[in-house]
Amino acid sequence: MPYVNIKVTREGVTADQKAELISGVTDLLVRVLNKNPKTTVVVIDEVSLEDWGVGGVPVEQYRRARVS
Amino acid sequence: MPYVNIKVTREGVTADQKAELISGVTDLLVRVLNKNPKTTVVVIDEVSLEDWGVGGVPVEQYRRARVS
Amino acid sequence: MPYVNIKVTREGVTADQKAELISGVTDLLVRVLNKNPKTTVVVIDEVSLEDWGVGGVPVEQYRRARVS
Amino acid sequence: MPYVNIKVTREGVTADQKAELISGVTDLLVRVLNKNPKTTVVVIDEVSLEDWGVGGVPVEQYRRARVS
Amino acid sequence: MPYVNIKVTREGVTADQKAELISGVTDLLVRVLNKNPKTTVVVIDEVSLEDWGVGGVPVEQYRRARVS
Amino acid sequence: MPYVNIKVTREGVTADQKAELISGVTDLLVRVLNKNPKTTVVVIDEVSLEDWGVGGVPVEQYRRARVS
Repeated sequence: MPYVNIKVTREGVTADQKAELISGVTDLLVRVLNKNPKTTVVVIDEVSLEDWGVGGVPVEQYRRARVS
Repeated sequence: MPYVNIKVTREGVTADQKAELISGVTDLLVRVLNKNPKTTVVVIDEVSLEDWGVGGVPVEQYRRARVS
Repeated sequence: MPYVNIKVTREGVTADQKAELISGVTDLLVRVLNKNPKTTVVVIDEVSLEDWGVGGVPVEQYRRARVS
Repeated sequence: MPYVNIKVTREGVTADQKAELISGVTDLLVRVLNKNPKTTVVVIDEVSLEDWGVGGVPVEQYRRARVS
Repeated sequence: MPYVNIKVTREGVTADQKAELISGVTDLLVRVLNKNPKTTVVVIDEVSLEDWGVGGVPVEQYRRARVS
Repeated sequence: MPYVNIKVTREGVTADQKAELISGVTDLLVRVLNKNPKTTVVVIDEVSLEDWGVGGVPVEQYRRARVS
């Protein structure tokens, strides 16, 4: 009965994509660890861009710096 | 000074119910572990139905399958 | 199908106390939110004293300061 | 740059299985959301059986009840 | 490549303040642990007041009690 | 009353370094958000190398690949 938490930036993730993540990570736990899918819980958190930092700056600033 | 995080699906949990959860879980930690309630922190997360998966599918689909 | 995470300092919490926490918090979610206990997951984390800070200092130093 | 946390019970998960989980969940995020694998972080927590509750009881008791 | 999660009550934290938190905590990890800032991830969660409990009550009630 | 969780790889972090992290992140929250240090909680998790993945592989493999 694993618990999985997936955090991604909030950028238009669709309900179908979320269903794919739930299905895919549950299958992975069944395949690798023989876990029971019925009791595998997955929680997805979408995080606003201003709440996500990497490289010491908010993620949008980080991306602009890498492009330029 | 425990820290408790409660994640539930977002389905109309009222402020009164949240206050009951905060009070109940704090009392539990006082009673079982003799913790100081003044420094017990409780954080409740309401999670959208499409962000909660169980049985490899989003929770709404999981519930429909169980009913049918 | 809630998910609850309880973090407490590692100070000799017994298996019986953990079972009481699991039972108590599950009962609380059933009573307040009418959740299904069968799919309520509780994870307890015991945290070493040096890994727990409050008031800007490790918790042991915090406690000594309050006593003196 | 997603962050994924996988919590499973501590029951002899091998380093190879952990590497498979890391690889599999990263691939999933690349495939479904086109995320950059280089900045995808995965953290696995193994949780002692006495620290994992389901159905209102520690997981070992839950399993015995289901078998009997 | 540390991962830091900061939870604060939702009370008008600005994007500039969030950028300062991201910058400050990343600098701290570089300074104290010599971590690589490029792979340090920071996620900030703003939590509604009714979802934050302390002293066994929601935080607003807790503050009123302390003032009076 | 913020809650901060810092996850780093388990590689000989000393108690003094942990105290510095606790002090530093608490000061940051006081300075940037005017939070009360007395109710600021910090929890540090040290994560085994095999439990930390980045770039789709365990972190040790990731580091070797970058050096070579």
